[in-house]
Amino acid sequence: MASRFEFIIFSMTLSFAAIFHMAMAGDPDILSDFIVPLGSPPVVDGNLFTFTGMRQLVGAPPPDKFKVLKASLAEFPILNGQSVSMAVLQYPGGSVNPPHTHPRASELLFLLDGSLQVGIVDTTNKLYTQTLQEGDIFVFPKGLVHFQYNVDANKPAFAVSAFGSANAGTVSIPNAVFNTSISDAVLATSFKTDVSTIQKLKAGLGH
Amino acid sequence: MASRFEFIIFSMTLSFAAIFHMAMAGDPDILSDFIVPLGSPPVVDGNLFTFTGMRQLVGAPPPDKFKVLKASLAEFPILNGQSVSMAVLQYPGGSVNPPHTHPRASELLFLLDGSLQVGIVDTTNKLYTQTLQEGDIFVFPKGLVHFQYNVDANKPAFAVSAFGSANAGTVSIPNAVFNTSISDAVLATSFKTDVSTIQKLKAGLGH
Amino acid sequence: MASRFEFIIFSMTLSFAAIFHMAMAGDPDILSDFIVPLGSPPVVDGNLFTFTGMRQLVGAPPPDKFKVLKASLAEFPILNGQSVSMAVLQYPGGSVNPPHTHPRASELLFLLDGSLQVGIVDTTNKLYTQTLQEGDIFVFPKGLVHFQYNVDANKPAFAVSAFGSANAGTVSIPNAVFNTSISDAVLATSFKTDVSTIQKLKAGLGH
Amino acid sequence: MASRFEFIIFSMTLSFAAIFHMAMAGDPDILSDFIVPLGSPPVVDGNLFTFTGMRQLVGAPPPDKFKVLKASLAEFPILNGQSVSMAVLQYPGGSVNPPHTHPRASELLFLLDGSLQVGIVDTTNKLYTQTLQEGDIFVFPKGLVHFQYNVDANKPAFAVSAFGSANAGTVSIPNAVFNTSISDAVLATSFKTDVSTIQKLKAGLGH
Amino acid sequence: MASRFEFIIFSMTLSFAAIFHMAMAGDPDILSDFIVPLGSPPVVDGNLFTFTGMRQLVGAPPPDKFKVLKASLAEFPILNGQSVSMAVLQYPGGSVNPPHTHPRASELLFLLDGSLQVGIVDTTNKLYTQTLQEGDIFVFPKGLVHFQYNVDANKPAFAVSAFGSANAGTVSIPNAVFNTSISDAVLATSFKTDVSTIQKLKAGLGH
Amino acid sequence: MASRFEFIIFSMTLSFAAIFHMAMAGDPDILSDFIVPLGSPPVVDGNLFTFTGMRQLVGAPPPDKFKVLKASLAEFPILNGQSVSMAVLQYPGGSVNPPHTHPRASELLFLLDGSLQVGIVDTTNKLYTQTLQEGDIFVFPKGLVHFQYNVDANKPAFAVSAFGSANAGTVSIPNAVFNTSISDAVLATSFKTDVSTIQKLKAGLGH
Repeated sequence: MASRFEFIIFSMTLSFAAIFHMAMAGDPDILSDFIVPLGSPPVVDGNLFTFTGMRQLVGAPPPDKFKVLKASLAEFPILNGQSVSMAVLQYPGGSVNPPHTHPRASELLFLLDGSLQVGIVDTTNKLYTQTLQEGDIFVFPKGLVHFQYNVDANKPAFAVSAFGSANAGTVSIPNAVFNTSISDAVLATSFKTDVSTIQKLKAGLGH
Repeated sequence: MASRFEFIIFSMTLSFAAIFHMAMAGDPDILSDFIVPLGSPPVVDGNLFTFTGMRQLVGAPPPDKFKVLKASLAEFPILNGQSVSMAVLQYPGGSVNPPHTHPRASELLFLLDGSLQVGIVDTTNKLYTQTLQEGDIFVFPKGLVHFQYNVDANKPAFAVSAFGSANAGTVSIPNAVFNTSISDAVLATSFKTDVSTIQKLKAGLGH
Repeated sequence: MASRFEFIIFSMTLSFAAIFHMAMAGDPDILSDFIVPLGSPPVVDGNLFTFTGMRQLVGAPPPDKFKVLKASLAEFPILNGQSVSMAVLQYPGGSVNPPHTHPRASELLFLLDGSLQVGIVDTTNKLYTQTLQEGDIFVFPKGLVHFQYNVDANKPAFAVSAFGSANAGTVSIPNAVFNTSISDAVLATSFKTDVSTIQKLKAGLGH
Repeated sequence: MASRFEFIIFSMTLSFAAIFHMAMAGDPDILSDFIVPLGSPPVVDGNLFTFTGMRQLVGAPPPDKFKVLKASLAEFPILNGQSVSMAVLQYPGGSVNPPHTHPRASELLFLLDGSLQVGIVDTTNKLYTQTLQEGDIFVFPKGLVHFQYNVDANKPAFAVSAFGSANAGTVSIPNAVFNTSISDAVLATSFKTDVSTIQKLKAGLGH
Repeated sequence: MASRFEFIIFSMTLSFAAIFHMAMAGDPDILSDFIVPLGSPPVVDGNLFTFTGMRQLVGAPPPDKFKVLKASLAEFPILNGQSVSMAVLQYPGGSVNPPHTHPRASELLFLLDGSLQVGIVDTTNKLYTQTLQEGDIFVFPKGLVHFQYNVDANKPAFAVSAFGSANAGTVSIPNAVFNTSISDAVLATSFKTDVSTIQKLKAGLGH
Repeated sequence: MASRFEFIIFSMTLSFAAIFHMAMAGDPDILSDFIVPLGSPPVVDGNLFTFTGMRQLVGAPPPDKFKVLKASLAEFPILNGQSVSMAVLQYPGGSVNPPHTHPRASELLFLLDGSLQVGIVDTTNKLYTQTLQEGDIFVFPKGLVHFQYNVDANKPAFAVSAFGSANAGTVSIPNAVFNTSISDAVLATSFKTDVSTIQKLKAGLGH
């Protein structure tokens, strides 16, 4: 297996091996079966392909606010070049996953427990909403604004999401827009409101 | 939303609209937010993005043999161009998902219940195995032979898989090799065995 | 030239030719030199490759509010499969191109006249800003929130942008979030504010 | 097999099926095992995957001028979406395959008989040449100007080429530049020569 | 030529140059004319683009068992990023190229001498076979199980194959399934046979 | 932001960080928001996304021969992975941008001042020409031979071009064919002319 072979070279020659290895990424897909991350143990075995970071969920009490656990490139580096990742989403009653986009992948959300009101907005600003029940799957196309809302104040919801990239990325609209230093003038003009409303929104988000 | 607009044209002009619509796929990714499948209701709403085919699992008794339910291009056509799909896998005690490959995507398997022995074979014929426990995620790289086995005869296992393509495809090794009309001579020579062993294998698989 | 040939077939056989033509898009890039849009004149000449929609800018007075003119797939259909498009952006003094994303391409903005304050927010919510002067080029990476602001109240700014897709798409944050029917409850929770602030924002944007 | 299924639909519904079929090309790779070309016989069998157009070479006398036989998208339509094609090249003694580029693929040339002088020019105008002997393989990177020359006046050469696209395309420099109606003025200025030399070149190439 | 320039930097600064060079692979295609492999001679000339590993075939007696010679990424590293490779296949009378898949490319096989019975199995387990004669070309779509069989016991066959990737990879079904340590229980269950048949198959293949 | 994080690692560990960073390019698109070039200042700010190399044009007199200024990968390294670049083209009266191809991208030319006669030749050697006036945009499809000619001897022309790759590359036909060491025999045979005409062309181009 080519990647394994290169890893041994890595240990011996450092940067020289790196040059050859990475250059393989010239095709749209990787040119090896998989890419052994730097710093992996010298013996490649089944552990390399296993992510145990979700075990913490087993038997754990539900969180008290919306929470995402990810199995993506950063947490599970063997995903590099495999073009897929997952996340677990936990919604206490009444909680929201605020409007956001994923710049690098579409998302398939599989609702395992509870119910969710979900929505997407396309590039013509048309909103599509749905109320999901247990067992439903919903697709959020790549790059579009979307959100999920657990309307039921008393019952948590639990979902598993799949993404068609190892690193889908997340642009959180509230934080990206109102929790950075974009000037009040820009925001007030953009949102056709007054500076005091912008400042109130920023303060609420902790900026 | 461009796709929606084109759908209306479809209803009026049939093939002419089709020409323009599909030609959009010239870029590696689709050039619209999503692609409304032919035959969709005239009003596009949240239902288009919802797959309800997994609801049948809720409260249902576990199956008595290994079973896969898919949410891929065929079952959920809005996935066209979104590069992601999902499947639910149910393993009664002692059952196996036989060695197979997915020609068009890597697979991330999230084990929600039970335990599984899994394995992948790379292109140098090296086997990597792992025993997964509840909460574990395992990646099967694109195109490699892999399998899952529920060793525990008494406890079903349940998993959700993500794929980095809307139509990953499945090549089942037992069926593709021993359950078609590939001649006994080819198979006996290939597997370095005698024709009677090949015939026994074929018969066992129902050919 | 293959595309031209197919066009003739289109005129004769309608849908049958369409099937063959579009299927060519199976490779990441198109498999012909270019794709003649349906409805083009029967004789393909240089006009097919020419977009005259920007001529209206020559000698025209500057607009009184921020204005974008695009040469993308919708306006210039021969761009199909060519993975590039352009836009002209005109900023009266004090105007803003509000925070937005392009889901399908990065943008290179070339400032030909005036000055602009620009900003991008990455997926860790870090803001990068710059004040551009005449002759500067700035890159807005694919999928990230960004904006441009003509701080000078008295001098218009004029820019030309290039995109690495024939149809980059635009997600306008103010409109996608506050000018659709996303419920007040979802937005108030998401932006950690009260419903009356949300309603004020919606009203300001004309919803 | 999905493509086959769609073909049956084609026969019944013409353009409607076309819409669904082609739209599958939204991913960089095709989303089916293969794409059955329109007009194929209703029963798909091994003939669909077979190209017999090279049989004419068996036992035929060598041609008296440089000749190319191709197995690409136009001649072998099942290659659609498979990203590969082939060509056979026959060089009588002293013949040249003139400088040309392939816009959509790199070429691997395998010299089966005779010898060839080959050359490529990179985008810094550096020339790389080699004299190939029987059994040698040479790679011509995508989009670069290249040529082959059978220096031996008395011995034909014979080669098989592979391309990483079903339709690599060929830009023949002599014909594209001097055998179209590009004006003498443009060419004389471009090649820093006089109009009479340009006219002589055009006449020699038959324009 | 950019790659050449970087090679010089490699010699001086090792890893730093590597970083810049590889990062170029961010686009689906490489962003340079070609990629000079590490360890290449300091002067880049035509030799870099030439593979001489097939010269051994010229005048050599046919092998006594099925044999493949490859010109792919491992043997011919300048193919990196060029998305094409080749192989020569030699079939003594009665020999088989056992069922296998190529995870990363389709294959075009050009039969130069002899005859071959070939077959592919699609993802619905439908078998397509053909008997090829000299001069025929056959396409094996990406990721599908396929084989070739020289039925004639007395006449060798000789073929050249093209692949649409620099590293197509090969999954040999007999070896990947019965010549690794996949447990007898998994295999017996998968192939619906008894453990002794599995053990016999494994032993025959040398495990 | 992942790229930033990696940059810090770069500063500490050199080659090891490089290995991980580049391997991210396994997907067709980059897997981070952007890629910080090696040698960038330790603090990433808006300057990294700004190219000031065109400021020299502001107020400068027009050049006395055809001139191109580029903002591509070499001049503006943050473009790595963003799949877009730009160029400014200045044409004194009567000047020509000689026939050339861009191997890695289509070009959109926006004529801001003056007029231009432009032409493209497709792979069937058909020429398409157009006379552009101020405000016109023209597309030159990927890999095709094209040129621009300022017919007016007295009025300079000025254009901005967009490319769908960070490094489109340029193959200048006159230089690639007649200003390298391709032998006179190859060229005379290719262009169906005599050696003295070839030598005259070479001399005129300075070879």
